[in-house]
Amino acid sequence: MSAGRLYGVGLGPGDPELLTVKAVRVIETAPVIAFFAKSGRPGNARTIADRWIPASAHQLLLAYPVTTEIPVSDPAYNEALRAFYAEATERLADELAAGRDVALLSEGDPLFYGSFMHLYIRLKERFPVTIIPGVTGMAGCWSAAGEAMTWGDDIMTVLPGTLPQQTLTERLRGADAAVIMKVGKNFAKIRQALRDSGHYERAIYVERGTMAGEKVMKLADKADDSAPYFAIVLVSGQGRRP
Amino acid sequence: MSAGRLYGVGLGPGDPELLTVKAVRVIETAPVIAFFAKSGRPGNARTIADRWIPASAHQLLLAYPVTTEIPVSDPAYNEALRAFYAEATERLADELAAGRDVALLSEGDPLFYGSFMHLYIRLKERFPVTIIPGVTGMAGCWSAAGEAMTWGDDIMTVLPGTLPQQTLTERLRGADAAVIMKVGKNFAKIRQALRDSGHYERAIYVERGTMAGEKVMKLADKADDSAPYFAIVLVSGQGRRP
Repeated sequence: MSAGRLYGVGLGPGDPELLTVKAVRVIETAPVIAFFAKSGRPGNARTIADRWIPASAHQLLLAYPVTTEIPVSDPAYNEALRAFYAEATERLADELAAGRDVALLSEGDPLFYGSFMHLYIRLKERFPVTIIPGVTGMAGCWSAAGEAMTWGDDIMTVLPGTLPQQTLTERLRGADAAVIMKVGKNFAKIRQALRDSGHYERAIYVERGTMAGEKVMKLADKADDSAPYFAIVLVSGQGRRP
Repeated sequence: MSAGRLYGVGLGPGDPELLTVKAVRVIETAPVIAFFAKSGRPGNARTIADRWIPASAHQLLLAYPVTTEIPVSDPAYNEALRAFYAEATERLADELAAGRDVALLSEGDPLFYGSFMHLYIRLKERFPVTIIPGVTGMAGCWSAAGEAMTWGDDIMTVLPGTLPQQTLTERLRGADAAVIMKVGKNFAKIRQALRDSGHYERAIYVERGTMAGEKVMKLADKADDSAPYFAIVLVSGQGRRP
């Protein structure tokens, strides 16, 4: 018996019509559909792919351990995640070893800040793998905002909002175009870094890009500092445009 | 009569199955399909979308002026392009004003270094526009290479290879992960910048990612310095991975 194939399936930014034709084909035919979700939650990936998952598929939920009581900087946090990824890996390996293909759903693109990567690096030497790239969350957000991001020789920098304020400020200074991911609790820090780097007036805030409840506004017009983790801030480039 | 709608349709990195479901729907139903191509060539965008374009569609070719004899730095180059974009804008405006929707094909993502943007900024105040994001060429390349690009707090920088060598070196030094676009004639310069910034051993070269004739190799293993314009160099991040 030959082993199954692992598919890393990019789901795009949230609109179910923004899956690729290839992603839909794999989801419609894979005998096992695996996805991450917080314990007790339906899971955003599962929700985006829902209309494409056949009733006959075996659904394999990979439920994140509850870690809200542990700070990210605590080694125990890292250890809890490591154990979770190791266990999830073995659950997928069992399916693959039994000859069943597994489609592991991944919001956005599988290899761009994706949870998929943690299982991928543990499985790629053991089983055949196919990656199906997806529309990134940031591309969904800049299309929702109608922001033309990069022109000519523009340099674009992607920054996690989790970085220290000083780092954000320095990197924003050197960027023509910028995307700040993982906004959430980092909002006030990001706002200040944009002010200090001279990009504040051009910055656009996008929440739930391409999904129900989508919000797009100038960052300067946002009165409060509260934002979901997956909100994104965009600064578009101003490069050569004949 | 109401005006037509302009659709900026992202086609993804080259594999026709990497169009999104939404892009296919728009291409299958828009009365006018517009695309850029070099004079006398079928056009890469047209080729990628070919299987989805109905026979009934009116195809509108926007043929780039031949500018190979003019250096990019010559003002005449800019002027030739400006005149071309202005004329292309009016051809699309005629269709839209007559109430016909126009799907303008765009390789990769429409708002990321896309020719689409030059018509978009000229038309967006005059007609309704919908942007359909696409899988970027770089995501197609890193999925083809199986390179997990960004982890945890990694900063990713996207650099056009057309930049001066010193700029490339400096920006590569400050990046955890990097993508170098527009390789072509800039190959030797890019190779040196990767050496000088300490990223050379990790750099991956990808040509025709997701398409027939795809090539993936370590940059250090590439013997010659010749590459097509759309080849991409990838340096993956090494951030937090539990």
